[in-house]
Amino acid sequence: MSEAVKIDASRVIADLRELAERTSDDAGAQRVAWTETWHEARAFLGELLGEIGLTNETDEAGNTWARLDGAGAGEDALVVGSHLDSVPGGGWLDGALGVMTAVGVLRAYSEQPASRPLVLADWADEEGSRFGLSLFGSSAFAGTLDTAAAAELVDADGRTMRDVLAESNVEIERAPECAARREGLGAYLELHIEQGPVMEAKGVTVAAVEGCQGIERQRFSFRGQAGHAGTTPMAMRHDAALAAARCAIGISELPSEYGGVATAGELRLEPGISTAVAGVAHLTCDLRNPEPGALEAMLAGARKASAGAAEEHGCSVSEEPIFRIEPTAFDSGLVAAAKKATEEATGSTFAITSGALHDAAQAARVLPAAMMFCPSRDGLSHAREEDTSEEDLATAIAAFGRLVAKALEL
Amino acid sequence: MSEAVKIDASRVIADLRELAERTSDDAGAQRVAWTETWHEARAFLGELLGEIGLTNETDEAGNTWARLDGAGAGEDALVVGSHLDSVPGGGWLDGALGVMTAVGVLRAYSEQPASRPLVLADWADEEGSRFGLSLFGSSAFAGTLDTAAAAELVDADGRTMRDVLAESNVEIERAPECAARREGLGAYLELHIEQGPVMEAKGVTVAAVEGCQGIERQRFSFRGQAGHAGTTPMAMRHDAALAAARCAIGISELPSEYGGVATAGELRLEPGISTAVAGVAHLTCDLRNPEPGALEAMLAGARKASAGAAEEHGCSVSEEPIFRIEPTAFDSGLVAAAKKATEEATGSTFAITSGALHDAAQAARVLPAAMMFCPSRDGLSHAREEDTSEEDLATAIAAFGRLVAKALEL
Repeated sequence: MSEAVKIDASRVIADLRELAERTSDDAGAQRVAWTETWHEARAFLGELLGEIGLTNETDEAGNTWARLDGAGAGEDALVVGSHLDSVPGGGWLDGALGVMTAVGVLRAYSEQPASRPLVLADWADEEGSRFGLSLFGSSAFAGTLDTAAAAELVDADGRTMRDVLAESNVEIERAPECAARREGLGAYLELHIEQGPVMEAKGVTVAAVEGCQGIERQRFSFRGQAGHAGTTPMAMRHDAALAAARCAIGISELPSEYGGVATAGELRLEPGISTAVAGVAHLTCDLRNPEPGALEAMLAGARKASAGAAEEHGCSVSEEPIFRIEPTAFDSGLVAAAKKATEEATGSTFAITSGALHDAAQAARVLPAAMMFCPSRDGLSHAREEDTSEEDLATAIAAFGRLVAKALEL
Repeated sequence: MSEAVKIDASRVIADLRELAERTSDDAGAQRVAWTETWHEARAFLGELLGEIGLTNETDEAGNTWARLDGAGAGEDALVVGSHLDSVPGGGWLDGALGVMTAVGVLRAYSEQPASRPLVLADWADEEGSRFGLSLFGSSAFAGTLDTAAAAELVDADGRTMRDVLAESNVEIERAPECAARREGLGAYLELHIEQGPVMEAKGVTVAAVEGCQGIERQRFSFRGQAGHAGTTPMAMRHDAALAAARCAIGISELPSEYGGVATAGELRLEPGISTAVAGVAHLTCDLRNPEPGALEAMLAGARKASAGAAEEHGCSVSEEPIFRIEPTAFDSGLVAAAKKATEEATGSTFAITSGALHDAAQAARVLPAAMMFCPSRDGLSHAREEDTSEEDLATAIAAFGRLVAKALEL
């Protein structure tokens, strides 16, 4: 195995600082996909690639690609990447860390050619902030995008995704054509922040990611009977708020049996005033588990909890699916390489399953893929306060460089 | 005891229909206090009083009064009344029934003079729909209005109660001066709809009201830590939604121990999205009980439930009082007279404690007072669908006439 080419971590961090300077305001990062600020972020990416003699191309889904052929021009390429788009008022690292590190990888190998081509991918609209649809570009690439449904999604101003994307020269119906880019690609690697508190709590500075949890997200709507808080006797009530409250508690108890995590994060009552028994309650249920069978069992458990809660309070309950994605297991060979790289860099082989969604989960459907995480201070993300120490970033970038070197040899 | 003067129930019902015709739209009654439609309702009241040779006066708090002296001009007067104002999109009976029946009482005694003066009271802004302050006019009369606080309340358009009332020629700081009207008043009687399902369920068409439950209304705010629904392990969560859910269930269990009713009708989560653990939850708690000691015990129980729920989910909890009113016991002599009147009219002595607030609860602080209820179809009120059969209305109006006759003799 060849010695790892050293990525200049200081330069990567300086590029991240410069990106934040150019594309943030007092409320945080504003690189929301399809906005002028996002295009400015991509223009900066273009400048950085230009410095090392590379140009970038945008595909039919709005993903940006750059390619360094080097010595092994005929071999399958290794893709490194992430996303430049942010949530409104986001942090400086979510997505940007992976893209700027990918630039660092290409920069390093531009001076010491790799045995295989290296490709940078900057996926379009990972966050889904504007239309509620996450992983747009990577799902188009993976062939899992429902284009017809996506086209008609509307933003807060009532504009369709079709119309907004057209302004960025993306014809949404043609987005799936970007799948042709899979040709000649051999594997995908992504460095990202954890966006949770686990690594910090364990004192781990970089970790291999074994996969992404699957998600089942439902909305349960309980319907009882609204009534006057003073004049409706307890025995005559059909209180939808209590049915939802009991269901929320039942949902929260599912992980103790099945693992994973379960969240009831949105609850809306109607009429929702202090002087009325609630007649209707809408409760969301977000279930995540790395094991398909366990995820299915959690969903069955949530349904049972909702039916029991409804019955106990004399309500009916209906269910509306919001989102689902199968659990993703990353490529075992690449995960093993990632663990080896973290061990070499830090002495730790700690590995984690991602609770958040990532473009790598889509890429993994069509390419061997893996990720690495570095910790998030206080577990915070999607906020201006999102941070990781420069020391930990440098460690993670170095470990990712080791992973790239190993993957080039696989 | 003199024979009861017969109130023309058909005429009262016709007046109610005419009032609804003049002051409702497709969404229901629109007699919201301090609006043009409310003034139109009062102009109609003026017309009806004019027909029997009476004029009305408005006091410093915006209450409307009319007086029929008759034979016993020197005696303390018997007051009959209720309120003409409605919630937006309200029903045809809430408040209006009592005022139109009071007109019927004065109409009847204008032809057959009573042994004491009869006074009609149309209290201003019973509903508190616009500024969230119920029983405005009757609390000014009873001396329980906090004028300084009321003056600064704002409506949805940001206008102060002081400014809005000034347009109806009410100088809010002078509202308490209406208490001078207590002089020469001997007792207060009010006919109202139940606004709940109890009488209908029991098949009772008219009932004496023994008092109004006291109310303790609080807002509990639970503060935990917002987090990503996918990346925050269950064991590291401080889920404010679960704390609030558990507290709501605890609150709902209080009446089984203390009687009364308990409602958690408003629950707001922050950030309140399906993909985040809630960091903050605001839950209202509305407790009602006819017994002061039991009401106090309920409040202590709710506080205990909130503290226990907060601790269980690693949250803090704070408490904000919203509203409180002591339980009101109506005058025992008048309640006995009301039971006798319902027995004579229907054979039933069923009596009820009101779970809703009424102007009579304020009047009762300064005058012997009592109420009568007639049933609400399906227990509905504060809605266009609010209704009582004309047969039941006629029975209730006749029973109220018997009560007036008895009260005149007390």
